[in-house]
Amino acid sequence: MQKVVCVLSGGMDSTLCAYIAKKSGYEIIPLHFNYGQRTQKKELECFRKICEDLSVDNKYEIDIPFFTAIGASALTDDSIDVPISGIEDGVPVTYVPFRNGIFLSIAAAVAEKEDACAIYIGVVQEDSSGYPDCTDSFISKMENSINQGTKETTKLKIITPLVHMTKEQIVQEAVFLNVPLKDTWSCYKDENKPCGVCDSCRLRAKGFDLANQIDPIL
Amino acid sequence: MQKVVCVLSGGMDSTLCAYIAKKSGYEIIPLHFNYGQRTQKKELECFRKICEDLSVDNKYEIDIPFFTAIGASALTDDSIDVPISGIEDGVPVTYVPFRNGIFLSIAAAVAEKEDACAIYIGVVQEDSSGYPDCTDSFISKMENSINQGTKETTKLKIITPLVHMTKEQIVQEAVFLNVPLKDTWSCYKDENKPCGVCDSCRLRAKGFDLANQIDPIL
Repeated sequence: MQKVVCVLSGGMDSTLCAYIAKKSGYEIIPLHFNYGQRTQKKELECFRKICEDLSVDNKYEIDIPFFTAIGASALTDDSIDVPISGIEDGVPVTYVPFRNGIFLSIAAAVAEKEDACAIYIGVVQEDSSGYPDCTDSFISKMENSINQGTKETTKLKIITPLVHMTKEQIVQEAVFLNVPLKDTWSCYKDENKPCGVCDSCRLRAKGFDLANQIDPIL
Repeated sequence: MQKVVCVLSGGMDSTLCAYIAKKSGYEIIPLHFNYGQRTQKKELECFRKICEDLSVDNKYEIDIPFFTAIGASALTDDSIDVPISGIEDGVPVTYVPFRNGIFLSIAAAVAEKEDACAIYIGVVQEDSSGYPDCTDSFISKMENSINQGTKETTKLKIITPLVHMTKEQIVQEAVFLNVPLKDTWSCYKDENKPCGVCDSCRLRAKGFDLANQIDPIL
């Protein structure tokens, strides 16, 4: 059974992504990051529940607290408010500098150590917050970098099953695959009750609405 | 004055690299990583001395202890011995999976936050240990990834002044620029006295020999 590393925050997108990887017949190694984000505790709790549901043998929980030292994002710097007035054009202040570049680099190191053949990551380009590190073109360049900068015997694909899906399709597919959406968390702001007004809550709500589904965490 | 981020381990190569960046007229922001390597304490001490000599205003010391959880390298896993019998062909066991990919990704985040225009890194391709993440071709792919995955206004060059230098040229240039070589550390194994037989000690010794210089740390 070939192994794949799945970047898994505990949100709806990365959770669906991990279930798609499992359904494709891989042994999955979920990889979670505690990076000092506002909802770190809640996300870790979701990650662990999802790993149990997925019956994984091997998982990584990696602490990278330096993100708060870098800051420059509403998610990692308490002095910057999370915007609540709706999604706007351009890169929002919730953008964390080169977050997925850092996540994928660490995932590459884990994958190389584990002899995995791919990294799954649940980036979404269409219905997204406009992050530059969630695009197809970034992912393909990063895949090239990783294969150039690791051992010749290491051949890694970066697989992004959600990159061109809408939030509606994501919810439909998650329901179809029996993904435990009740154990996922998307809100940027709060760890107890989704705020409903941050970009991430809005995108999630849009998906459930259009898919005619009720969000089990509400 | 334009800013650049300098990846600075406290070894001979990265130290020369930082002095070259400074001489080029940039405000330099040194960036050091404590990644659980065997000589972490000594390298940090060297980093701080060099930063003092460089009179920097702003520096980053970043802890990334997860490297030891990944392991798979003689530098980050105590159960794997550092080889002492001479440099061999291929990737040695001192290779740390995708280390420079991770370092450069974090450097990109710091550079984006600081509005820097470049990242300096002292990789050496010719007289090297054969690490795949120390090559020109890797660096250029990584530069593309970083520019694709960060904000449109972020334009970062990765500058590698040493990449095609021999160790002899590195020592000559360091002496010429008055780099405080006495405050640098290269040994993989020991924090008190260079072992003289690890690949890093051998490469350093070769440089000093061919340049007809005496290593001030011996």
